This record gives sequence, structure tokens and C-alpha cells, in this order.
Amino acid sequence: MAKTNPGRFFEDYRVGQVIDHAVPRTVTSGERALYHALYPARHALYSSDEFARACGLPESPIDDLAAFHVVFGKTVPDISLNAVANLGYAEGRWLTPVYAGDTLRSSSEVIGLKQNSNGKSGVVYVRTTGSNQRGETVMEYCRWVMVRKNDPDAPAPETVIPDLKKVLTPEDLAVPQGLNFDNYDFTLAGEPHRWGDYQVGETIDHVDGVTIEEAEHMMATRLWQNTSKVHFDATIRPDGQRLIYGGHVISMARALSFNGLGNAQMIVGLNAGAHANPCFSGDTVKAWTEVLDKADTPAPGVGAVRLRLVATKGGAPFELKGEDGKYLPNVLLDLDYWALMPQ
Amino acid sequence: MAKTNPGRFFEDYRVGQVIDHAVPRTVTSGERALYHALYPARHALYSSDEFARACGLPESPIDDLAAFHVVFGKTVPDISLNAVANLGYAEGRWLTPVYAGDTLRSSSEVIGLKQNSNGKSGVVYVRTTGSNQRGETVMEYCRWVMVRKNDPDAPAPETVIPDLKKVLTPEDLAVPQGLNFDNYDFTLAGEPHRWGDYQVGETIDHVDGVTIEEAEHMMATRLWQNTSKVHFDATIRPDGQRLIYGGHVISMARALSFNGLGNAQMIVGLNAGAHANPCFSGDTVKAWTEVLDKADTPAPGVGAVRLRLVATKGGAPFELKGEDGKYLPNVLLDLDYWALMPQ
Amino acid sequence: MAKTNPGRFFEDYRVGQVIDHAVPRTVTSGERALYHALYPARHALYSSDEFARACGLPESPIDDLAAFHVVFGKTVPDISLNAVANLGYAEGRWLTPVYAGDTLRSSSEVIGLKQNSNGKSGVVYVRTTGSNQRGETVMEYCRWVMVRKNDPDAPAPETVIPDLKKVLTPEDLAVPQGLNFDNYDFTLAGEPHRWGDYQVGETIDHVDGVTIEEAEHMMATRLWQNTSKVHFDATIRPDGQRLIYGGHVISMARALSFNGLGNAQMIVGLNAGAHANPCFSGDTVKAWTEVLDKADTPAPGVGAVRLRLVATKGGAPFELKGEDGKYLPNVLLDLDYWALMPQ
Repeated sequence: MAKTNPGRFFEDYRVGQVIDHAVPRTVTSGERALYHALYPARHALYSSDEFARACGLPESPIDDLAAFHVVFGKTVPDISLNAVANLGYAEGRWLTPVYAGDTLRSSSEVIGLKQNSNGKSGVVYVRTTGSNQRGETVMEYCRWVMVRKNDPDAPAPETVIPDLKKVLTPEDLAVPQGLNFDNYDFTLAGEPHRWGDYQVGETIDHVDGVTIEEAEHMMATRLWQNTSKVHFDATIRPDGQRLIYGGHVISMARALSFNGLGNAQMIVGLNAGAHANPCFSGDTVKAWTEVLDKADTPAPGVGAVRLRLVATKGGAPFELKGEDGKYLPNVLLDLDYWALMPQ
Repeated sequence: MAKTNPGRFFEDYRVGQVIDHAVPRTVTSGERALYHALYPARHALYSSDEFARACGLPESPIDDLAAFHVVFGKTVPDISLNAVANLGYAEGRWLTPVYAGDTLRSSSEVIGLKQNSNGKSGVVYVRTTGSNQRGETVMEYCRWVMVRKNDPDAPAPETVIPDLKKVLTPEDLAVPQGLNFDNYDFTLAGEPHRWGDYQVGETIDHVDGVTIEEAEHMMATRLWQNTSKVHFDATIRPDGQRLIYGGHVISMARALSFNGLGNAQMIVGLNAGAHANPCFSGDTVKAWTEVLDKADTPAPGVGAVRLRLVATKGGAPFELKGEDGKYLPNVLLDLDYWALMPQ
Repeated sequence: MAKTNPGRFFEDYRVGQVIDHAVPRTVTSGERALYHALYPARHALYSSDEFARACGLPESPIDDLAAFHVVFGKTVPDISLNAVANLGYAEGRWLTPVYAGDTLRSSSEVIGLKQNSNGKSGVVYVRTTGSNQRGETVMEYCRWVMVRKNDPDAPAPETVIPDLKKVLTPEDLAVPQGLNFDNYDFTLAGEPHRWGDYQVGETIDHVDGVTIEEAEHMMATRLWQNTSKVHFDATIRPDGQRLIYGGHVISMARALSFNGLGNAQMIVGLNAGAHANPCFSGDTVKAWTEVLDKADTPAPGVGAVRLRLVATKGGAPFELKGEDGKYLPNVLLDLDYWALMPQ
């Protein structure tokens, strides 16, 4: 057993440590097609090379969330193999679109540590950076996870809690080079509503739902080379259920949000995210969105919208937390992100 | 909810209306591979670039039915979101093969309307055209669906029933440019039987069967960006079952028909089609064929066969309708199409 | 029914007979992506074009086992459609890597025949060769299967049992042209252990497990165009279960073996293999390995390891056979292969 990866424990992390994650991955039109088979993804910019070119890009990029999943998947063996919980995300930025043929790798810097008062576990904060074969950063994000200690007697590290932005400002967002929505074709995009039609505070019920299957979430999670045992091995949990990768729920909810937000084309910022409750095979995922903010961008015809995307398992739309301030049991995901939209 | 697509209702259609469907799609070798993973597809022309080149094509096209599914899928949000039933097909013609890298879009013209006597719904006839990035028509077909009225008091439109051909004539069929079966390799194709070996009236039991899984039909239906809720959301129907997209059964039956019709390579015409009974996960799909007609084509070595392809859920082969003239309960599909075969 | 393929029976084979198998297949990046979705495959050489180039290859090849499955799948209609059991493999050699865009075909020579004493069946030995569009042999292997007789009165052929090597010698192994592990990046590969770190006799528990789903094994088996009915049709076996293609278990176990053998990059030889017990949906496949031998190769920095890869359904690691010499009921696969590893 000495040659298998036991994963890192809380006491193995040091602030400032940089971990280069293994198994670079070349993504192709095969990954693009699979993304469309696994999720009801219909955003035109990611579906049609012609549409993407009309928006100033060289061709249709790999879905922003697929890029995220690939970058994230590589971190699992080093960061979250012994994680008890995935606690949060912040400062997620998409900096360069990923195209078929690109090879992605990722690395993480430990930016914070805080041992829990029980002495058995602690919170590890990392900033993960995904880059392509030209060394360009394609995306970066911060994540913090609760990780078990292997040796309960290992001394507690000095507590360092990174100062992370609650919300990215519009200036933090990177609009892909060349992006131009001046000649945006709303008919082909499938939605008449443009940036100006959305009001801060507005909520949208995305109506559609997808009942989740084991084969699908496992194929998705493997595709991103995420090795977390709980997603694949039904004998791990006492209830015999495989826990669904939180990213599967993110992609499902985002794809469902096409119905009402079909012009929220590109994801450029991830402000925060919580996997409120676990998702299992048989759950029917639905989604709703609240418009949190709007901003201009320097790119022609391109506006930004800050959206709260909530996934539920058949829950009522627009209900998020109970009187106790806790997520309602039917809420799966609470995601706060910035997207680009034609003006 | 105002921003989501409610779909069109019967009173929203006008004869002569042209609807440009949204979300163009670039199809790639990824879609080709997925087609081979989802269906037991073995026709050599669609499996091997080398075989396709030996038949005069530049490379292996995307399966004709995959092209149909992509074109069809785009119409769902505009034509059949509020459909009660998919009633029929006619005058389906494949005009230009689709190759990896092509971007498809589709549009439909309303060619007929007939309100039902109950005043609550009506039949909408459309002619749908799929085109590629060069503006070439890749396929077209007529379809009629029963659509609910939203406002029962909306006035009935003038009844227009289009004059559609019951069967395409051989002259209606488009043989792909350059197709040449003079040097057809029957060994590589996997079947010794050529055009001359099939007799009108002959029936073929394709023997093999596939038991249908939820994950597979959902992946297929999503891949074609078909958004019809009943295929994905198990909570929609009172029985908790997801209805399987009729096109999934078409592709499954066609792929199974390789065993006995492995040389019926290209589909060039769709004369008629009925989804006789619904298909659900757990059904074992089998198929049989009746040879309905044969014809010459101008292309070297290329003949045409008109075939009735019947899919059943474990039903006896060669039984189609009961004494009451209705489809037997085990019949899923009755499809009448033209295919090209080496002479 | 005359036009469907009944398969060959024992009396239809002759020693020296060469069978060219049908349906050549062009493999693409789509097949590569699907392989990563179906199996937890993480070997860097097959995941990253950049990593492959740093090892002297033009780009990342299609997984060696995917190449095997494609070559094998073509043989099913001719060799094993009426097979009662897949008895063994020998002298499997990978000679040329397969890249996206290659078109594979295969042919088999009958190299042995032995009628069983019951007179109802016999063993057929074949040597199967897979080649690409340039006529280069990509791989070859011997396999023997027990096949039913159609006519019990057909005379027994002369018994010919081929003289097959129990184990390929290091000299039998073909190292891909240009392969060079001198600058191998162990960090990106995800494993620190190199050729020198493994000892003959050492055993490794690969720890991870995957619970098998119907949709996944059917998609995999169809992707390789394997037409064996028992994998797809739940009505064939009295227990209503679909038998999982043995190759699916091979690929699953090999992918799981990354955890502990992540640097055993390329498979170059298959010495022997037994599908010890059938695998069904719901089984949780785990794997362990025993190092059987080590050898040098002429390529820079490249060593060879001979490995016994054992797949179990949740069975204890390192237990293979009972006191009766038979495989334990939890053992699914016992595979003896050569792989290339950095020194």
C-alpha cells in the first residue's frame, strides 16, 4: 500500500507551499461533445463555431465550467482526498478561453490554515491556477476545505486566514480578447432578453428539471479525472449511495439556466459557492436565479451580470434558507457568479 | 417566469410563417464517437474514413440520423414544447452529407393548420430545413404535431392541409455527389448481400436487441439539444417514468438493422414514420424490416431500397397491427425510408 | 432470417484459414474522450499531448487497451458469436501506437482446433492482427474460445494445438519508435515511483473502486462495435442480467492501477489473461497488482515491468485462488502483461 497516494493531511500543509498537480490533460472536441451529452447545455457561443466567430472568438471555446472541472479535478489527489467538506470558493476568474487542443495543468498555493478547535481537523485555503500549454493562466480560484489530521498530536500551525474578496468587482473581470457583442444574433442565441432587460433583484425560475443518473455523474466526474472515492464506489458510505460531485450540480444548474438566461454566455467570475446539501442519483435537479448586480465592461456591446444560481432537488423556486439561517433541505447549490451578456 | 420560453401554442401559428430555430451546433468527431457509443452502429461508411473515401466521399460523414436529430432538436422549443403528440413525418430528404466541423442550423415553415373539433388543440404542419455553414441544405422533412391551445377561445384558423407525398419517388432522392459503389468492399462492409439480393416483400428479422437505460437515452437526447421536459424529468408524468425520445428508438432500430441490412448504407429519404407506442427505460428494443420497393439511381453501382423498419419491445417480428387496424402494443416504431445500397 | 449473421460454428473453422473482419473504424479524439469518461484513466502519456511529446511521441496515443478493444470487437461476429467461453490469451503485442485519425481493421488466422470429448463443441485458436490505414500492424494477440458445433455429427478436425509462449520475453516487446523517458516528469505523471523502485514479488493494492453501471459498460462495448448479444439484451440470460464484456473489466482494473502504478505508462505485451468470474452491473470493481518480472529495453530511460493485474468485485487484495486451485468467487480478472516504465 506504500505506493498508493494516501493524500495529504492537515498537518502536511504549510502556508506558502506550492503544489504542482499531476496529470495534464489535452481537451478536444470529444470533451466538448461529452459536455453536451451530459448537460442540457445550449449557450450558442459554446455550441457553434460560427456563432463564436461572429462574437470575435476564433472558434467555440470549451465550456467555462468544463475548464473549471479539469483544473479542479487535478487538485483532488493533493487537496481534498482526505477532505471532510468543501467549504467555499472565492475570487474565481476565467482569464483565457480554452479551445479544443489545449493542454491544461494546474497548481495550488496554500494561502491559509486554521486548525479546528477539536484538534482533529483544520481548514486549508488554497489558490488554484490552471494554465495552458503556452503558460497562460486560463483560470484561477480560491477554495477552502476541511481536512482531517492523520496525527492528532501534530502541532497546530499558526492560524492564517486569507483576506479574500466577498465579491469580485467589475474591474477584476477579464473579458476575452476580441469579444464583441455588437452584432450578436439574438434569434440564433435563442433568447430575446438582453443585458438591459434584467433588473437587479429580479428572479427567474428556469422551469426545466433533470433527474440524475449514476452513470452520468460518474462519466462526468471521471472525464475531469476527479478521483474522489465517494463519487464512484457505492460501498464507501454506510447508506450505499454515491455522493455526486458538486461540480456536476453546478454544470447541470448552469445548463438549465439557459431557459431564461440564454444570453448570459460566458462565465468570467466566481464570487462564492456553497454545496448546501448532498445530491444523489434519483434527485431531480431544478434551478432558479436571482440577478444580484450589473456592470459595464470595456468590450463592445458586452455587459456583465452578477447572478445567484440556486439548484434544488425539486424544491420551490426562490426559497433559499429557513428561519434558522440554514439552507433549506432541498437546496443543493448556492452559486454567485459573473457572466457576460450582450447589451 | 416571464423570461423563460413558454413555447408556442396552436393559436400562435400562421400558415406561411417561417421560424428560425435557435442554437446552431458545430458537430465534430466527438458527436461521431458518441453516436457509436450510444447505438450499435456498424455501417462501414460511417465508421471508417478509408471506407468512405473508397466510396467517393471525402471522409466518413456524421450518421444521417445524427444529422436529423440535430436539425430536429432545434425545432423542439418552437414547435413541440406544448405538443400533445408527434403525428407523422413525410418528404424527408437528405441532400448534403454532414462532416465533422460542420455547423448546423434549422428553420421551419408552417405549411398547414387544422384545429381539432374539441377546440382545445390543433394540428400544426411544418417543413423543417437544416442547413450548414455554407448555406447548403443538409436535410429537410415535414412533420405534423398536435399542439395545445393556450386560449380555448382563440378563433380557429382556416384549415390548410398540405398536399404531401405518401412516398418519395426515386427521382426525389439526392445521391451525395461523388458517391460510387463500383469498388465497394463487401468483406469490409460485413455483409455479402447486395441490392440485387433483396426482393420486394421480403422481411428480415434483425435478431439482436438492446435493453434501454435512462442514462443513455438522456445523453443522446441532450446531445441533440432536444429540450422536451418529458425525456429528462421523472416528476413530470404521473407514472414517474421518463418518456424516451422517439428519435432514440429510430437510431437504435436502424443500428440493429445492420444485421441483415449492413449494406443499406446511406439514408436518403424518409417517407413516413409513426411512433406507435411509447418506449421506456427497461424495454428491450428489437427490429425487423420489410423491403417495400427498389429503384435504380444515376450514381455508379448505387441502388435504392425502400424499407419499412419496425422497432418492437421484445415483440414478435413481422407483426405490426391487430385486427382493429391499430398498432400492436409491442410495436414502438413504424418507419418508411429509402436507403442507398451497392448493386 | 437468412440474411442475418448466424456466426461460425466449430465445424466451420479450418487451421490456416484467414478471416478478414468487417467494419473498419476510424478512431478520433472522440473515442479518446469517451475512454476518459468511461474509465478513471489518468496515465499522463494518454492524457496530455504535451507530456507525450516530451516522451518522444508525436502526440498522445489512443489508450493501448482501446486499440485492443477496437481490434477485438471486429472479431466477435466471426469468432465468438457462438462462443461458450473465452478461454485465454497469449502472445499479445502492441507494435505501433494508434493516434486520433487512424483507421483500424483486423483479421484472424485459425492456428489451432481441438474438438471436445463431448463432441458438441471445440476449442478454436486464432491469431488476430489489427492494422492501420498504412498497413502497419498496430497489435496482435492469440485467443482461444470454446465454440458450439451446429451439426453434432460433423466430423472432428485433426487436433492442432499451437505452441504459444507462456510469457513474452523482453526481446519480444516492441518499444514505440522515439520513446524516450530520459526527461520524464514524475511530478506531472503523478507518481514518484520509478522502475527501480519496484521489486519482483511486490504486491500493490490499488485501493480505489468503481461500482459498475449498465449504461456505462454498454456504451463502452458498443464503442468497440462488439456485437455479442449477452452484453446488451437483458432477456437473453435466464437471470435477466447483462454479462459485462470482459474487456470492460480489463480497462477498469488497468485504470484503477494508476494509484500505485501511475508510471507503468504503455502496455506492450499481453502474456496471459483469464476472466475468472462474470461481472455484472452493481459489482464494485477493485484491483491489485503483483510485480512478476522486470527487464531493460534498448530505449533511453525505458524499463519494462511484467505485472499480474487482478480485478475483484470487492474481494480482499492479494487472494487469487482457493485450496482447490480455482479462482476465488470474487476474482474477476487475472491478467499478465508487460508495461513500459521510466528508469
